[in-house]
Amino acid sequence: MARSVKTGEVSEIEQVAGNGLLHRRALLGRGVAFAGALGAGAGLAATAAGAEPLAEAPWGQGPGDPVPAYQTPSKFAKNVVRSLSNPNFEPRTSQSRAPHQLLDGTITPNGVFFTIVHDGVPDIDPGQHQLLIHGLVKRPLTFSYEALQRYPMTSRIAFIECGGNSAGLFSPKPLQADVQALHGLVSCAEWTGVKLSTLLDETGIDPKAKWFIGEGADAAHVMRSVPLAKALDDAMIALYQNGEPLMPGNGYPMRLLLPGYEGNMNIKYLRRIKLLPEAAFSYWESQVYTEPLPDGKAYQFYFVNEVKSFITKPSPGLSLQQPGTYEISGLAYSGKGRISRVQVSADGGKSWGNAALQKPVLSMAFTRFRMPWQWNGGPAVLQSRAWDEEGNAQPTRAQFVAARGELLSVPPLLGFWNHHFNAITSWAVDQKGQVIHAYA
Amino acid sequence: MARSVKTGEVSEIEQVAGNGLLHRRALLGRGVAFAGALGAGAGLAATAAGAEPLAEAPWGQGPGDPVPAYQTPSKFAKNVVRSLSNPNFEPRTSQSRAPHQLLDGTITPNGVFFTIVHDGVPDIDPGQHQLLIHGLVKRPLTFSYEALQRYPMTSRIAFIECGGNSAGLFSPKPLQADVQALHGLVSCAEWTGVKLSTLLDETGIDPKAKWFIGEGADAAHVMRSVPLAKALDDAMIALYQNGEPLMPGNGYPMRLLLPGYEGNMNIKYLRRIKLLPEAAFSYWESQVYTEPLPDGKAYQFYFVNEVKSFITKPSPGLSLQQPGTYEISGLAYSGKGRISRVQVSADGGKSWGNAALQKPVLSMAFTRFRMPWQWNGGPAVLQSRAWDEEGNAQPTRAQFVAARGELLSVPPLLGFWNHHFNAITSWAVDQKGQVIHAYA
Repeated sequence: MARSVKTGEVSEIEQVAGNGLLHRRALLGRGVAFAGALGAGAGLAATAAGAEPLAEAPWGQGPGDPVPAYQTPSKFAKNVVRSLSNPNFEPRTSQSRAPHQLLDGTITPNGVFFTIVHDGVPDIDPGQHQLLIHGLVKRPLTFSYEALQRYPMTSRIAFIECGGNSAGLFSPKPLQADVQALHGLVSCAEWTGVKLSTLLDETGIDPKAKWFIGEGADAAHVMRSVPLAKALDDAMIALYQNGEPLMPGNGYPMRLLLPGYEGNMNIKYLRRIKLLPEAAFSYWESQVYTEPLPDGKAYQFYFVNEVKSFITKPSPGLSLQQPGTYEISGLAYSGKGRISRVQVSADGGKSWGNAALQKPVLSMAFTRFRMPWQWNGGPAVLQSRAWDEEGNAQPTRAQFVAARGELLSVPPLLGFWNHHFNAITSWAVDQKGQVIHAYA
Repeated sequence: MARSVKTGEVSEIEQVAGNGLLHRRALLGRGVAFAGALGAGAGLAATAAGAEPLAEAPWGQGPGDPVPAYQTPSKFAKNVVRSLSNPNFEPRTSQSRAPHQLLDGTITPNGVFFTIVHDGVPDIDPGQHQLLIHGLVKRPLTFSYEALQRYPMTSRIAFIECGGNSAGLFSPKPLQADVQALHGLVSCAEWTGVKLSTLLDETGIDPKAKWFIGEGADAAHVMRSVPLAKALDDAMIALYQNGEPLMPGNGYPMRLLLPGYEGNMNIKYLRRIKLLPEAAFSYWESQVYTEPLPDGKAYQFYFVNEVKSFITKPSPGLSLQQPGTYEISGLAYSGKGRISRVQVSADGGKSWGNAALQKPVLSMAFTRFRMPWQWNGGPAVLQSRAWDEEGNAQPTRAQFVAARGELLSVPPLLGFWNHHFNAITSWAVDQKGQVIHAYA
């Protein structure tokens, strides 16, 4: 599939797909690909320098600021924060979305990890908090925060995605919003805690138990039913997030982690696990996380976040300043295992090239994909599509809405009733380098 | 080596080494190992519960707090912060140390990532900052922060350790301090940026170049010489730390990342890289990071952080409340590659058992090790020792000081003149469960 094109002074740049997608190898050892030797029309990323032009900046001439006990970002990075759906803290659900268009790598730092709270962020004293495990167990037990610290722990990097992430793409017309607004309800961290199966070893399990329900301690008391098999597989009582105690918005002092399962099931502020013979059909699963399908049936108990990807750079708000070589980069993940492949298109899906996957590629974690792209100054439509190790592929938006429907009206339903959008996202680049959301 | 002991009601707990070190398997499927069935003398980690004792806590009865754009830890985690060597910001170097005894997992979150600054934390405007690459190159170039964002990036998880970390263990008597004070000048994050080799492809390299020197933009202008081979191998211009732009104390807007090389060489606030025919013998390497050895020679240009480990839990300040089963957990790392093995002793090195290594085990990154331990209420000396994939082993303290010497006086030299301590650390547990630093 690879072919070569002549472009300005540098000939024989190896393309992997149409409209300028380059093989990663094409850049190695070639030099000056980014610095402007692609010809008069290509952009200068670097600037030619003289011998010693190091003028001293103000910060090189005197002392800086004191060192804080807990450091936070530079004031020059003040836009690298979460967007708030409820900034005036009205009595309703508050979403905060992660600024993926301004992040890179695979870890979402704790400061900007997305959160959804239904009644504010509770201020829980871990010394007072208890986790009760009861129901169909041989002996009910409560575990204090301190007691859990004694148990064998495990760590894993895992994403958590709200079932309502990307709900804006159910809209019949592409909403003009950025990555953060459209896809910001997903994040990825290293979680450390005690496997739920270890605690169930302690309580024992009545053979009649087939499900459990988890319950949060905050005023919303979110409750979700989970098959017991997940408890015995990889469910964790998470105590640490990227090394430090959980953030208040992410469940401090403890949360349920169900790798690959939609966000709300990963019960925050976990205070109770009750083993049950069947699902509880709680408010949260019967009313909130059930939705009608075009065929008249209902979509319920879907649990697993399907394979998905989106390009974070370039993306709306990150314009291209001039023709030249850029890196296309984005995130891919699947609730069903490892990402096996990500392809990128610069021509709206007519041709595709395989992106490089940042190693290590971990199960149910963010995988960063990257591909060099030579933008010639013409229109382009950038897309990514991912596959997971089970062979699941991201659908086109047309395929997706045929099965799942579109929204008839956008607000106020947006983000509440339409879940698990995982189709391909398209970014259209115009001749000025502006990037907008498109359906293609 | 495994043998079995009778302990209270649960017989045949499989031990892997003396004084209660247990095989991880010993706990699986056995149940109630932590909940008190080990006998009357063993501790209850969990508490027996009634059917429905869920009294409603204050945080379950009303709204919580507003959601911030950038979230920070709970006020109940206010001690999970860095300790400051220079809290009044006097005109000298400021160390801040990571609270590893209160962290878990392998990622150090950005808020508590250790920092050392010699003249405060500079407040650098990335729009004004430039990186110059010059010296023995074919064409000198400057790169703005924005320009670097266009280049192909890579991510890797890597630790950074100050050459002076653990310098307290050069003291002839064990200093009574915690993990943070003794070993807090090391941290581990996911770094994302542009490989230096990519930028040197742009500038070209004069064949006479064998070294380069990096220089920081803050007032301290730290400069260190680095062999050019490292530049062409895995050196990176890091722009992101755990996903977000670098923290101000960790080099914002850009730093040099030299995986496995001592902290000060990973030049923060990087503004210049100059290719040279030989090492520059800068102040920072001739004066600060050179030290006399017992045999009259000098220790200089040592670069790589040697294989090392320490136990974070239990550790000084984290006392054991009662006899029973605990997890021994800690960190291991090597500047020469992956950790291949960590052993733990509970009897001061008389017998050792292999700890479990948290996967994935990554090169030049923190590896978390874990081992279950049944504390019988008697005295114990806890130790860990690590090996890396090159076969390097952590020395005993006696072996180490024979080669490297001890301090004759502790302050003011401590932490400044004695570097690269990587010998075994010992924690002594007394019959009350108090944990102190010991030499054993």
